[in-house]
Amino acid sequence: MTTQFLFEQIKQKKSFLCIGLDTDMEKIPSHLLDHEDPIFEFNKAIIDATHDLCVAYKPNIAFYEAYGLKGWKSLERTMAYLNEHHPEIFTIADAKRGDIGNTASRYAKAFFDTLNFDSITVAPYMGRDSVEPFLEFEDKHTILLALTSNKGAFDFQTKKLGNQELYKEVLQVSTKYKNSGNLMYVVGATKASYLEEVRKLVPNHFLLVPGVGAQGGSLEEVCSHAMNDKVGLLVNSSRGIIYASRGENFALGAREAAQLLQREMLKYVEKVI
Amino acid sequence: MTTQFLFEQIKQKKSFLCIGLDTDMEKIPSHLLDHEDPIFEFNKAIIDATHDLCVAYKPNIAFYEAYGLKGWKSLERTMAYLNEHHPEIFTIADAKRGDIGNTASRYAKAFFDTLNFDSITVAPYMGRDSVEPFLEFEDKHTILLALTSNKGAFDFQTKKLGNQELYKEVLQVSTKYKNSGNLMYVVGATKASYLEEVRKLVPNHFLLVPGVGAQGGSLEEVCSHAMNDKVGLLVNSSRGIIYASRGENFALGAREAAQLLQREMLKYVEKVI
Repeated sequence: MTTQFLFEQIKQKKSFLCIGLDTDMEKIPSHLLDHEDPIFEFNKAIIDATHDLCVAYKPNIAFYEAYGLKGWKSLERTMAYLNEHHPEIFTIADAKRGDIGNTASRYAKAFFDTLNFDSITVAPYMGRDSVEPFLEFEDKHTILLALTSNKGAFDFQTKKLGNQELYKEVLQVSTKYKNSGNLMYVVGATKASYLEEVRKLVPNHFLLVPGVGAQGGSLEEVCSHAMNDKVGLLVNSSRGIIYASRGENFALGAREAAQLLQREMLKYVEKVI
Repeated sequence: MTTQFLFEQIKQKKSFLCIGLDTDMEKIPSHLLDHEDPIFEFNKAIIDATHDLCVAYKPNIAFYEAYGLKGWKSLERTMAYLNEHHPEIFTIADAKRGDIGNTASRYAKAFFDTLNFDSITVAPYMGRDSVEPFLEFEDKHTILLALTSNKGAFDFQTKKLGNQELYKEVLQVSTKYKNSGNLMYVVGATKASYLEEVRKLVPNHFLLVPGVGAQGGSLEEVCSHAMNDKVGLLVNSSRGIIYASRGENFALGAREAAQLLQREMLKYVEKVI
């Protein structure tokens, strides 16, 4: 998917919402556990109830891998369902991979080809030759961790590397990688004051912003500091939407939670179209 | 597995060799392709031919994920085979994972419990709360990327963060994490001059050293700079062993390549016992 197509979707749906499919067997409604594949059934119900309100879905791969073969199968079925019924929705493999050359190419193949994701999150620690193999894929996107929304982000990311903080160095160095037009960046909403700094360094790239809602970030701050003329934002909510309601009507609860965010987003999208 | 048990194995086998199971369908001998699970058959033959010469096996998870469900099944079968026939061998999931809290716990569960690996490689970029969930598991080890053996290591790892290089900061900060006794570190052999610096900061931790052989590092340099009184090293070779010979006798070729390295290691092990 091109970023232009993604922008068209944002304008059409008046939403830049990404829904995180962090599906956990211990948290899904108990009536689903009778199904052969409860994780897929849960995801399907969430997708059916929310697909008109969001422009992206982001399964966190750890939740699937934790169940071994069975989890991997649920992920494959979820992606097949999305690709068949909602090919216009941007899909993000939240995998946070990072390995060198040949190995990075393997991961790229697994997520871009085998599972047909539009994008994958990648860790920057190993540098250029761990990122460029992902960037080779046309119309596929590599979402590099820049500034994450957790406490541990202050261990290294915000410390000064030479003249500037490590996360800024990551932004600046990576924009010189081959095919850097295929880059997006993870920037946590819990650090809204940093968002302005990020935008100075990467004015045109899309930012994937976790941490709105459950982790305490404010949508207003994110938009005022980081929106560009093509919106340039995908704001993610996971637990706040998919576990908004735990009973038989969980899908309706998820829809209502997604709708609240989408209605708030609407006014920001209208500013740029 | 405790590090004391690992040291006993090193003394007994006079080897600190780790064999990387980076099994690639395009590189395994063609006669194996008729089997139902060629990747497992290849791994089994390599393990049968080399298990007395090495103390660790390290499947790089990317190679398995690239084949989706089928690859995950081959990984499960390989681990089941190792756990059943060679429980004394240390197993490393070369996964380079890194994610926060709840998600890190999922990955830990997937690799430590479901697959029963002894250890996993983890990227440090996201800091403390992305590493500590792995460290909670008793007698399981978290191998943190410090200084990798690829060119991209110079993008960030060797740049100065405050007063010292990022990789040193990673070493120093991480030794203060809870249960840091369960940490080991990845330090590439291609940068032998750095190994001495690493040992000053982490005198007692095991180091997983890739890059000997194919990537140009020398075993002698590694040992002279980084061996401690419990050896404290796992030196990895992947392609140099498993693809040493490509014909029907590939397993014998792998054995011979492993033997060459083990014979060289023998003299270093004898120095400390």
